[in-house]
Amino acid sequence: MKSFINYPENSDFSIYNIPFGVGVFGKEYIACATRIGDKIIDLAGLYELGFLDEIKGLDENVFEGYTLNEFIELGKSVTNAVRLKIQELLLENSILSQDEEALESCFFDVEEVEMMMPIHVSNYTDFYSSIEHATNVGKMFRDPANALLPNWKHLPVGYHGRASSIVVSGVNIHRPKGQMKPADAEKPIFGASKQLDFELEMAFIVNKNTNLGESISTAEAEDAIFGMVIFNDWSARDIQSWEYVPLGPFLGKNFGSSISPWVVTLEALEPFRTASPMQEPEVLDYLKFEGNKNFDINLEVFLQPENSEENLISKSNFKFMYWNMAQQLAHHTINGCNVEVGDIYASGTISGSEKTSFGSMLELTWRGTEPLKLSNGEERKFIEDNDTIIMRGFSEKNGIRVGFGEVKGKILPSI
Amino acid sequence: MKSFINYPENSDFSIYNIPFGVGVFGKEYIACATRIGDKIIDLAGLYELGFLDEIKGLDENVFEGYTLNEFIELGKSVTNAVRLKIQELLLENSILSQDEEALESCFFDVEEVEMMMPIHVSNYTDFYSSIEHATNVGKMFRDPANALLPNWKHLPVGYHGRASSIVVSGVNIHRPKGQMKPADAEKPIFGASKQLDFELEMAFIVNKNTNLGESISTAEAEDAIFGMVIFNDWSARDIQSWEYVPLGPFLGKNFGSSISPWVVTLEALEPFRTASPMQEPEVLDYLKFEGNKNFDINLEVFLQPENSEENLISKSNFKFMYWNMAQQLAHHTINGCNVEVGDIYASGTISGSEKTSFGSMLELTWRGTEPLKLSNGEERKFIEDNDTIIMRGFSEKNGIRVGFGEVKGKILPSI
Repeated sequence: MKSFINYPENSDFSIYNIPFGVGVFGKEYIACATRIGDKIIDLAGLYELGFLDEIKGLDENVFEGYTLNEFIELGKSVTNAVRLKIQELLLENSILSQDEEALESCFFDVEEVEMMMPIHVSNYTDFYSSIEHATNVGKMFRDPANALLPNWKHLPVGYHGRASSIVVSGVNIHRPKGQMKPADAEKPIFGASKQLDFELEMAFIVNKNTNLGESISTAEAEDAIFGMVIFNDWSARDIQSWEYVPLGPFLGKNFGSSISPWVVTLEALEPFRTASPMQEPEVLDYLKFEGNKNFDINLEVFLQPENSEENLISKSNFKFMYWNMAQQLAHHTINGCNVEVGDIYASGTISGSEKTSFGSMLELTWRGTEPLKLSNGEERKFIEDNDTIIMRGFSEKNGIRVGFGEVKGKILPSI
Repeated sequence: MKSFINYPENSDFSIYNIPFGVGVFGKEYIACATRIGDKIIDLAGLYELGFLDEIKGLDENVFEGYTLNEFIELGKSVTNAVRLKIQELLLENSILSQDEEALESCFFDVEEVEMMMPIHVSNYTDFYSSIEHATNVGKMFRDPANALLPNWKHLPVGYHGRASSIVVSGVNIHRPKGQMKPADAEKPIFGASKQLDFELEMAFIVNKNTNLGESISTAEAEDAIFGMVIFNDWSARDIQSWEYVPLGPFLGKNFGSSISPWVVTLEALEPFRTASPMQEPEVLDYLKFEGNKNFDINLEVFLQPENSEENLISKSNFKFMYWNMAQQLAHHTINGCNVEVGDIYASGTISGSEKTSFGSMLELTWRGTEPLKLSNGEERKFIEDNDTIIMRGFSEKNGIRVGFGEVKGKILPSI
């Protein structure tokens, strides 16, 4: 496929992608959008001009909203049809390529559009599904010989996170303050976190509402997943380690999580399916699945100190996940827990087996004992004030590239 | 104060209460409501007839919504003025008492109105703030000699719960299925929970949105609390105990939580303030507070087997809470976590020091070892299918009674 919009070969936003987001166009007008190369397209405008008229079920202009929720609630039969139609419209010699008015009014340079949160997050759950990450944490904080807890290989461990504090790429985060108890202190102290970390994760977004008591099987799960984003689960390790027993992480996490602005559909990721790691012992029936449920998505993390260049500090891959998204959703609903349009389900930190593929500073510096060396001569045990963390992700196969762009956030000093 | 509406002396909904809720009137019309005695009043109707005209800031009819969120977001200056005005209108010889049209169109018998969820729940957090409950759990599952974990007296331990599965009183809950590992089993098994429990809690509802990075101090906290409800945090102990390490409770809780339909304002509870338990060791500065922040609210739990009578199985009191609501909200936001209108913050199980005041079956039967004897001759270790759990709460002092009514739910067989 070739588009009439030119873009470099390594663009994440090829004709094969067609992601969805929400943009502020020219600082005044808000609408749902898609992107190809470095052009952002106003979908409300495209709809008004009649280019999407033939899609059944798209009777109102759902693209005028401030979130994608209304659009994705239409379900895959509609959202897939819209995506394929946009793809067709972006091909060389399409009817759209000849329409001066549409090109003038609906196509914007990326610099002209500020991306907003793509969805209203109804509920947010974070899993813990990378065996390498769970093993690393177990080795550091518990028993190196029995790093994985007994339940870990039997169910995708997860917990509820805070929906309100999920922000879009570009929103900077103040270093959180809180209670912590340094190893050598007799009593807990109060102050700004000294062990601020990122967690490299991906997350999926659900497109349907279910009733309390209903379950979603592994076979049904992917139909309920609209698409994915990159997810940075900022973590204050010192606050977390003091608070988390026995009910789990809380203030060490809920001061902010960041997502990439473009939701890449499962359909765009279809060519990049791959086999899952072997699950041994065998899982219970409700967690069994058929087919390739993992996705080969290259992930990179960069740390950029103030007034300095980006340092690549981790290269991981979403395909390392032990538990896949279908299993996560089946597990989450097996007890009848209902899901809602706009729910976000994050993977947990995605680490590989190589040290260079670890998905957090905690693991990369092995709890601060092996600081990272940066190109400007500095070292880092954890994130310092005014450091920017950038995560990028893309899939590539047979000359086809589909990517997520980036999620970026700077840590500002504590207020 | 005496109302022109007659009600028995022990009514929870006295002229001193004036709670807020959302009702379906005559199976067709939905509006915000208040209640006095056994009469439910349509507030959208009262507004349309001009009875609330003098309240500044109430320019649109926020009572027409399907939730209280829009109303409570107006803040205490408006919501308190509305409550006081309604109270005045309900006094003997008021202008409303003489208005036949209003009495006819806005006043309904309780049987004619079905109560709905009073709010859209934006985010839900559950605390663990009863020292008696935390101690009981610690004794049963950890070390009787060191029942409380080291952090417990330094911060109000809490975790994020699932907002989507909070339902209103009267919604029945199917027994959840899930993974559990019986003590004598080699491998986890799948099935319906055999250790289904309630947790007697109260919860407060927040009336404002804050920005990420902002904190709410203990002095500011009560202004952000619109009111309270009774909260039943249904719990599947066998699912919970297998899954909860290391990230906290998840599927053992998120199959459903139930709340009472009437939100009782903090202002109505003002006469029932009482001192907090002594906090020793002294807490960090951000958790210090002035004045009486606990409330004397009598709480009762009843278990009603199918075709049998109610059995009173617990008598507790909200005043037992070690950590108060102001401390909970200050702690939750000290790291900059933002709050949203409609957030629910639950107390955690409210147990007293007497065995008869324990707030869960787990504690009342001491993990099933001392079954409860019921009036029909049966015994209970945990909740059985078709058992109904009813929780009631009220404050009473100097002849003034302000209550919550009840939260009720039946456990249906697993599907």
